[in-house]
Amino acid sequence: MISNALLYLTRKNLIETDARIIEPYCQGWRGERGKALFLARPRSMDELSEIVRTCIRNDIHLIPQSARTGLVGASVPDDSGQQGIVSLERLTSRFEFDRVNRSVTCSAGLRLSEVNARLKPDGLYLPIDLGADPCIGGMIATNTGGARLIRHGDMRRHVLELSVILGDADGTMVKLGSPLRKNATGPDWKHLFVGTGATFGIIGECTLSVERLPVHRAAALVPLPDETILPDFLIRLEEQFGSLISAIEFMSANAMHAAYAHVPSLKRPFGHDIPEMAVLVELSCDWPLAAEDRSLDDILLSGLCALWDETSGKLGAGVFGRAEEIWGIRHTLSEGVRRRGRLYAFDLAFRRSDTLRFRSVMTARLNRQFPGIEVCDFGHVGDGGLHFNLVDHLPADEWTPDRERAIRDFVIRAAVEEFGGSFSAEHSIGPVNQHYLNTFADDFHKSLASALEPVTSGRSFGRVHYSGINQR
Amino acid sequence: MISNALLYLTRKNLIETDARIIEPYCQGWRGERGKALFLARPRSMDELSEIVRTCIRNDIHLIPQSARTGLVGASVPDDSGQQGIVSLERLTSRFEFDRVNRSVTCSAGLRLSEVNARLKPDGLYLPIDLGADPCIGGMIATNTGGARLIRHGDMRRHVLELSVILGDADGTMVKLGSPLRKNATGPDWKHLFVGTGATFGIIGECTLSVERLPVHRAAALVPLPDETILPDFLIRLEEQFGSLISAIEFMSANAMHAAYAHVPSLKRPFGHDIPEMAVLVELSCDWPLAAEDRSLDDILLSGLCALWDETSGKLGAGVFGRAEEIWGIRHTLSEGVRRRGRLYAFDLAFRRSDTLRFRSVMTARLNRQFPGIEVCDFGHVGDGGLHFNLVDHLPADEWTPDRERAIRDFVIRAAVEEFGGSFSAEHSIGPVNQHYLNTFADDFHKSLASALEPVTSGRSFGRVHYSGINQR
Repeated sequence: MISNALLYLTRKNLIETDARIIEPYCQGWRGERGKALFLARPRSMDELSEIVRTCIRNDIHLIPQSARTGLVGASVPDDSGQQGIVSLERLTSRFEFDRVNRSVTCSAGLRLSEVNARLKPDGLYLPIDLGADPCIGGMIATNTGGARLIRHGDMRRHVLELSVILGDADGTMVKLGSPLRKNATGPDWKHLFVGTGATFGIIGECTLSVERLPVHRAAALVPLPDETILPDFLIRLEEQFGSLISAIEFMSANAMHAAYAHVPSLKRPFGHDIPEMAVLVELSCDWPLAAEDRSLDDILLSGLCALWDETSGKLGAGVFGRAEEIWGIRHTLSEGVRRRGRLYAFDLAFRRSDTLRFRSVMTARLNRQFPGIEVCDFGHVGDGGLHFNLVDHLPADEWTPDRERAIRDFVIRAAVEEFGGSFSAEHSIGPVNQHYLNTFADDFHKSLASALEPVTSGRSFGRVHYSGINQR
Repeated sequence: MISNALLYLTRKNLIETDARIIEPYCQGWRGERGKALFLARPRSMDELSEIVRTCIRNDIHLIPQSARTGLVGASVPDDSGQQGIVSLERLTSRFEFDRVNRSVTCSAGLRLSEVNARLKPDGLYLPIDLGADPCIGGMIATNTGGARLIRHGDMRRHVLELSVILGDADGTMVKLGSPLRKNATGPDWKHLFVGTGATFGIIGECTLSVERLPVHRAAALVPLPDETILPDFLIRLEEQFGSLISAIEFMSANAMHAAYAHVPSLKRPFGHDIPEMAVLVELSCDWPLAAEDRSLDDILLSGLCALWDETSGKLGAGVFGRAEEIWGIRHTLSEGVRRRGRLYAFDLAFRRSDTLRFRSVMTARLNRQFPGIEVCDFGHVGDGGLHFNLVDHLPADEWTPDRERAIRDFVIRAAVEEFGGSFSAEHSIGPVNQHYLNTFADDFHKSLASALEPVTSGRSFGRVHYSGINQR
């Protein structure tokens, strides 16, 4: 059966089986590796449907793949060599911009950067700000967030309509939602396909609501003496600047040191006297200021000075500079931390009052219980996100996988059970954290997912399983 | 069985059966009427659960009811006298404000005005702007929109967490979501309960993300010569003012005349020379402007002058005034139109390019096909919403229900089939428009709803059925 299916798909020029071509598609962003039976790169919804249909009928499990920039291994096939990869990278032909509706209908395989390049002449963009350059389909499938979520929300907010290929024996295409901005005619089923990988179907096309590009930006770095001031600082920032705020980002001293070690030429707004922690505050606006208007730099400066006075100087004096230079530090943290040693990365989220309290409590506990662990964290404290990254300095010959597992469990159990947090704020679910989903999802949530599977797909796609039973 | 259940609930003081008490609860906002077996007004989640449990076990169908401000009859029992009403109006005890998280956890029976009054001292509010004063639970159950959707989105955007009582034999309480602003750990099942009435369960409590109150506002009324200029006007407004815009509202001459006839003391910014159509543009900001900053009035005035120049005066000259006075006209349209005669109200939505094109095409067709119909429309053209209200001037003795049905079908078929619009932009589904849901929902959508019913509820609640089969 399988060989006939492969023969059919090969003849129709829909799949590659050459190992050299397939190999790069078997690797994830964080070094995950698997093996694949074949690689399919459909160029149209019809081709995607045909591939799905043929595979479903022949019992071949498909792993949909977008730009492979995901961080939880969801797009990497397993080791069996029996799974087929369906990459969306050639599904790029559709791009219909509706200027009046401020929306774009496009193929799932288009990169974020490409969509934004095409929207730029009209002063518009999809305002999801990420370190990577993913495809639109993967952004929806993971409901990605990013550094400007506090202003623009997550990917879900921008999805108006989806075209999905179901995993049934016909590879049926269904449409969910519409290009309308409001429509209250019952369950909005598109949400089932947002942030759920390809479990319930493969997203092939979508209509997105887009926004106006910022015209002005200003950024500052504010040193904090310790984490206890953050809750009050967040309140005061929002009182002062309201929705001019487009990012509030936290950086620990350890993360900043790691960034400077990795890229020594980065700007050093604090000189060599790096504070314990700092918060990047960005203001931006998407309308043109007039010549007589105060600049955002002025507004930010005077606002932060007022806060400094109000808090009797408990805040360190803010450091200003060109927004790109300040963001340059922020954007180097991740790679800097990665180079510092063996990394256990966590993508957590909390109520905003808990973000740095978690950090403080857990740093102390880790120091006691797991000597050798260095907390090199940073995150989106404006929306409660914390990339609680741990670098393990234990000598390699003392390290065991059990240690890593124990530390991961230790951190995630505290985050979820004690602090009511999320173990995956914006990276979604994959083999890397499926175990935690199985642990923490309640029976009701699992039963909802199970009830829908027969409707949405004879078989589900991908590596994730939401009913709590691991995928075969 | 039923009499035992009633006896039990009466003894526990959980229901009223006195007809005089029940009567007002059997009436809807637009005059719908039904009969009820009893009225339950639980004061706690436990009481709500007990009522549900008892009714489900005794095969009594419950009609959940919020503030009865809905416009599609969803909260009114049918004529059988066999349905029990469960009003949430006394479910008001919980109000936990998390200032740092900028969120509030509250009971579903609290009114919007009350939630906002309690948030006001902290400079916050739930930014859903409605003519009525509904309860929070009903706002979620209908996914209500309102006049500032272009800035703040619909109710869905603000829901972080829901506590729902399922229609199973235990009246089980489930929690969906969490007070976190980001959480990418699988299907976000709370969306199943947003905008779906109480079909899948009764919302008892929720956590909402709230926003900063506007500090400054400015509004203007701009006359348009005809509808063809609107698409370009929308683009230029957004280029000029970006996300300072908090409302773009359309008013037809007929609707304005109706408002003035109803409230002669309303401000008359155009004098007695009311233009064919006008658009209300509102700017607002939620941060304090400094003394040296231009006011929003100045920004609006100079921006509209620039647009007037760019369009070579094709736009009428804008009319300015106190924002409250301009909104006073807008807020009187609905009641004015209602008093003008027999009303067929439509709550439609379109792509922004289609809103006034639909209006123009349909006005001509209605004039030809249904003499006596006057189009008295207004709407949220910033997001594509159109309250396409028709007043029927046919003499009462010539009127038949068939005429109304024919006109409703005529308008809605064109809106949905020809223009790809929505037949319920923000009013959700009830007996008034269930028929259109059955007509237009596709089999896939119906099958999703059907698949979930056994999981979420032994029985569903309310008057709506999403699988396309009318409720018993």
